[in-house]
Amino acid sequence: MIIVLKPNITRKDETAVLKEIRKLGYKPHVMRGVERTVIGAIGDERTHQTLETLTSWPQVESVMPVQKRYKLISREAHKANSTIDVRGNLIGGRKFHVMAGPCSVESETQLMSTANAVKEAGATVLRGGAFKPRTSPYEFQGLGEKGLKMLARARRETGLAIITELLSEAHVQMVAEYADILQIGARNAQNFQLLIAAAKTGKPVLLKRGLSMKIEEWLLAGEYILANENPNLLFCERGIRTFETYTRNTLDLSTIPIIKRESHCPIVIDPSQGAGRADLVAAMCKGSVAMGADALLIEVHPNPAEAWSDGAQQLSLDGFAKLMRELKPFLVAAGRE
Amino acid sequence: MIIVLKPNITRKDETAVLKEIRKLGYKPHVMRGVERTVIGAIGDERTHQTLETLTSWPQVESVMPVQKRYKLISREAHKANSTIDVRGNLIGGRKFHVMAGPCSVESETQLMSTANAVKEAGATVLRGGAFKPRTSPYEFQGLGEKGLKMLARARRETGLAIITELLSEAHVQMVAEYADILQIGARNAQNFQLLIAAAKTGKPVLLKRGLSMKIEEWLLAGEYILANENPNLLFCERGIRTFETYTRNTLDLSTIPIIKRESHCPIVIDPSQGAGRADLVAAMCKGSVAMGADALLIEVHPNPAEAWSDGAQQLSLDGFAKLMRELKPFLVAAGRE
Amino acid sequence: MIIVLKPNITRKDETAVLKEIRKLGYKPHVMRGVERTVIGAIGDERTHQTLETLTSWPQVESVMPVQKRYKLISREAHKANSTIDVRGNLIGGRKFHVMAGPCSVESETQLMSTANAVKEAGATVLRGGAFKPRTSPYEFQGLGEKGLKMLARARRETGLAIITELLSEAHVQMVAEYADILQIGARNAQNFQLLIAAAKTGKPVLLKRGLSMKIEEWLLAGEYILANENPNLLFCERGIRTFETYTRNTLDLSTIPIIKRESHCPIVIDPSQGAGRADLVAAMCKGSVAMGADALLIEVHPNPAEAWSDGAQQLSLDGFAKLMRELKPFLVAAGRE
Amino acid sequence: MIIVLKPNITRKDETAVLKEIRKLGYKPHVMRGVERTVIGAIGDERTHQTLETLTSWPQVESVMPVQKRYKLISREAHKANSTIDVRGNLIGGRKFHVMAGPCSVESETQLMSTANAVKEAGATVLRGGAFKPRTSPYEFQGLGEKGLKMLARARRETGLAIITELLSEAHVQMVAEYADILQIGARNAQNFQLLIAAAKTGKPVLLKRGLSMKIEEWLLAGEYILANENPNLLFCERGIRTFETYTRNTLDLSTIPIIKRESHCPIVIDPSQGAGRADLVAAMCKGSVAMGADALLIEVHPNPAEAWSDGAQQLSLDGFAKLMRELKPFLVAAGRE
Repeated sequence: MIIVLKPNITRKDETAVLKEIRKLGYKPHVMRGVERTVIGAIGDERTHQTLETLTSWPQVESVMPVQKRYKLISREAHKANSTIDVRGNLIGGRKFHVMAGPCSVESETQLMSTANAVKEAGATVLRGGAFKPRTSPYEFQGLGEKGLKMLARARRETGLAIITELLSEAHVQMVAEYADILQIGARNAQNFQLLIAAAKTGKPVLLKRGLSMKIEEWLLAGEYILANENPNLLFCERGIRTFETYTRNTLDLSTIPIIKRESHCPIVIDPSQGAGRADLVAAMCKGSVAMGADALLIEVHPNPAEAWSDGAQQLSLDGFAKLMRELKPFLVAAGRE
Repeated sequence: MIIVLKPNITRKDETAVLKEIRKLGYKPHVMRGVERTVIGAIGDERTHQTLETLTSWPQVESVMPVQKRYKLISREAHKANSTIDVRGNLIGGRKFHVMAGPCSVESETQLMSTANAVKEAGATVLRGGAFKPRTSPYEFQGLGEKGLKMLARARRETGLAIITELLSEAHVQMVAEYADILQIGARNAQNFQLLIAAAKTGKPVLLKRGLSMKIEEWLLAGEYILANENPNLLFCERGIRTFETYTRNTLDLSTIPIIKRESHCPIVIDPSQGAGRADLVAAMCKGSVAMGADALLIEVHPNPAEAWSDGAQQLSLDGFAKLMRELKPFLVAAGRE
Repeated sequence: MIIVLKPNITRKDETAVLKEIRKLGYKPHVMRGVERTVIGAIGDERTHQTLETLTSWPQVESVMPVQKRYKLISREAHKANSTIDVRGNLIGGRKFHVMAGPCSVESETQLMSTANAVKEAGATVLRGGAFKPRTSPYEFQGLGEKGLKMLARARRETGLAIITELLSEAHVQMVAEYADILQIGARNAQNFQLLIAAAKTGKPVLLKRGLSMKIEEWLLAGEYILANENPNLLFCERGIRTFETYTRNTLDLSTIPIIKRESHCPIVIDPSQGAGRADLVAAMCKGSVAMGADALLIEVHPNPAEAWSDGAQQLSLDGFAKLMRELKPFLVAAGRE
Repeated sequence: MIIVLKPNITRKDETAVLKEIRKLGYKPHVMRGVERTVIGAIGDERTHQTLETLTSWPQVESVMPVQKRYKLISREAHKANSTIDVRGNLIGGRKFHVMAGPCSVESETQLMSTANAVKEAGATVLRGGAFKPRTSPYEFQGLGEKGLKMLARARRETGLAIITELLSEAHVQMVAEYADILQIGARNAQNFQLLIAAAKTGKPVLLKRGLSMKIEEWLLAGEYILANENPNLLFCERGIRTFETYTRNTLDLSTIPIIKRESHCPIVIDPSQGAGRADLVAAMCKGSVAMGADALLIEVHPNPAEAWSDGAQQLSLDGFAKLMRELKPFLVAAGRE
């Protein structure tokens, strides 16, 4: 850590700071500058106590961390890209993957027609929510286990792997029994108890970025998965909350090169949540492929206008098939299969 | 709902929209404007299906809701201010309340010295975290039930009521046994399963605003409490996430008149989280009192520089006593006790 | 406009609102809903007075505009894409363009070596700041007219067109004399007097998006150019300000399909400002091409570590040449030349 | 500056960084930590070249400034509060001031009735826009010099001082001739040429915070005024842009203690722009007084519903008089006159 002292403090005040730094387990190193004195506190910031509490001292102006706070998910810990095995599909490798399906599972018919169509168009994973986190208590909350059973049937009939959202510690066993990938939604991205419970199932976990989560916080939430002995983590960018109202969220595609730089885990993009509007999804998918994403997570519905949730952002079956054709030249350009 | 059509669409396209509106349970009402046609869809937006899915139709430009989405927590549902009874203290009435205590419960000594000091200075509720949500898995996560027992002892010895954070569905029974108010933290403000579980205990629930929660979303999260038959809800503003980095969060004091306008539930301000710096807390408390808040939630620690969490934002015991004295003239000016 | 009344207002209060709507030049159209009455006010919202002032009336809950506020820059006004002629280069057509050069013009040597290198690599426009808007009054403010003369010489010797920033009404004539495109920076994006002055020169204007400008506001700022009889407008996304601190700004690539949908004017992406870090620029350029941008604006410097401004985000000459080679397959995939 | 190197770099790479630091005028000071090496670069960051360009070097992880970038406006430069003399009124001293008047000057009648009413209620400064920055080119842009003349007449008749907005370098002489305080609006807060021109008139300058301006940037914009030899600067908070849509902006009242801590210049609050809704203005004014603001800037109109601009946020004459009465006990509590 770096501790910046206020200008013109007495030697006695400085000594008190040095004493406290030693007490908290660091070795202080003093640098006298033109105007201020700066102290480097040498020690492992992740195992020693934080020195940020020093900012409450009157003689201290600011405290700046030097080390990165994440370890296991960092690129430094694992130089090569990690690949996650999902029923034989390797996500994070040379092959690009598309996860597609409805926002909510609504019925056998809706789900099976979508599953068949997205498989036909080239998807390898079927998405579909059985438990839905809804802003209002009066909105449709999902079919629950009935929906999970429909997803399992779709898997049996199509061979597609299943990704579905886990939103309660009380459902962990149930959802893990049916799902191939556990999805943690944006609103639960810092529900650490849920992250720990999900990690302990050993199943791959797709961790969406929270609506106002800094990248460092997202990486640290991912660290909760690996620190609980589950190496199968996928990061998923789905748009952040900004002042803009034209789109529902602002999809931050810079996360693709950033996650690749900071971590070895795969990065998935969800353009449906990101834009909240179906007419922007195709362009965002092309951009994601070009920028190096490992997979896409796309909402597809046989009849978006009558969807029980988030109809405005779901592609039709035809729209999805067209998109998959349009993505091909960009996959070639990006050197992906 | 109001549906705005694109300019120059055919009568046939318009008819299709009208048919869909009727199918979803609304009565359409057409207004032809200078450039665009606008359709008013008459019906209860909270019981009928949403029409926002219509934005996926090519002939539709936008869909705008008209009704408010919350009911039970709204000022329209209950004209008078609600008061919440916490061990005989009425929060939301004429008497102003201060909840104070350490960020984390660390030891008997730390907690008892704080409890005695804040009681002496005029607080009626003792705060203290036994389970802590931490950004990094390597940070101190709280003493757990041991911390709850210390809080219970502090209550026995001082008569102060206890507020402590609930962050896992798995802990609901345990925390509810010890706490007088269950605190839902900012990171769990849209963890709806936790909200429902907390509501079902019947205990007063203090719901912090999420870091990037719009006021409407916060009100709807509160609606989850009342819709689960628990009328004892307190809203707590603790700062939102913005681009500013001088403060940890941006405390949005406009929530005080807004919550008073939209809802009958009390509003509590947490200036410690809001600023993340002890030196700004006093001014924020004065502003909160002047603007009509019902209570304050303040972090106080016998030795902030050695706190196990968030030392930078905790007041010392002396600092707290001084603040309580300084608040008095503003309470008089605001007509509070 | 749509005026939503509060629930349970008297007929007399309603009549007063209707009277005011007529007085302000609109024809009111009443719809009685289940809970609230809604009034459609028919009239041209761009020529009549705004009705938003009605929100100050106690009986009015909200007022919602229906029409788009921009005209000349809208896709409805001009179905085809506009192309801007810059010394014979058509920007906005099938050919993709790259504008590249240093953040600031520093010397003949620095500028000429960059100009030759970017031309060699395929750029058609040379960028370089002669007047620099700097956050601190103590930072380098640009070489002024001396810098403009160096740009003119670089144009003579290389045939590259010149883009440079205009930041003062007092410099309009001088900058317009040297520049082929006038760049309006993010901090001046709503400096309307400067926009009007720039428009009146007749030169192409590249309008950067302000740091916290909603897309609608950006389009309206562009409307100032066309409304002052200059059709040569280019929009340039350069990142918006969000809570994220890993990057200097958050580059909002969704603006590419959005500007294409709402407007006929070309869209240019500036990934250097957008990221503030050279190591993210290449990925962002690929994404921009894939998503349909018309041009890129890239900072390139012969020795970024010794640049007089913004060194952290400038590519080296080699880095730029490598990027240009890497972009080719994506241009092919996007059907661009 | 502090330069953090990447882990495991060679001694040769380290030496290259040290050489560059010396070349740019700093004295390097090496600290070898547990995992990384950190270099303190000793020298005046405001007079030497910035070292941030070093972040473009592959062996450098980050560069952190240590010094504050502002000087003349800082509390360190001038321990006492500055007071600004506006026609005999001292702003920034013990006496609290209220500046009030219409958003736009519309007519003699409108202005004079407002001027008389706000004077009667206790205001000392009359506000009123003669030049208006408007988001759309089709909106009312102000009466121009005709409006300034009306303001001058109102001053003659009431003795109130005049504050009005300056939005063009071309108007500096004209506006300075009529105004007692030059207001720089949020959209021009980083229009540095305008700031310099305003400073050079010697008139007091009220500098609004830009919509997405960090406090440090705002202080540096203020530094432009003092660095151009005009000590008469007032900072004015008017709300920042956030994700919240209930209010037009989010008024950041924490700026009051922060500006008092960092600077000696007075701080004024504009609750009308801050909220964009008249019904929230009174609470915000009370909070501002309690938190230590030096003055308020309030929009008042004889008939808000028919205002030519921003009617939704203007108080009526009666509403203003009531507010002034309600503020009194809070002024007493805050020890102000």
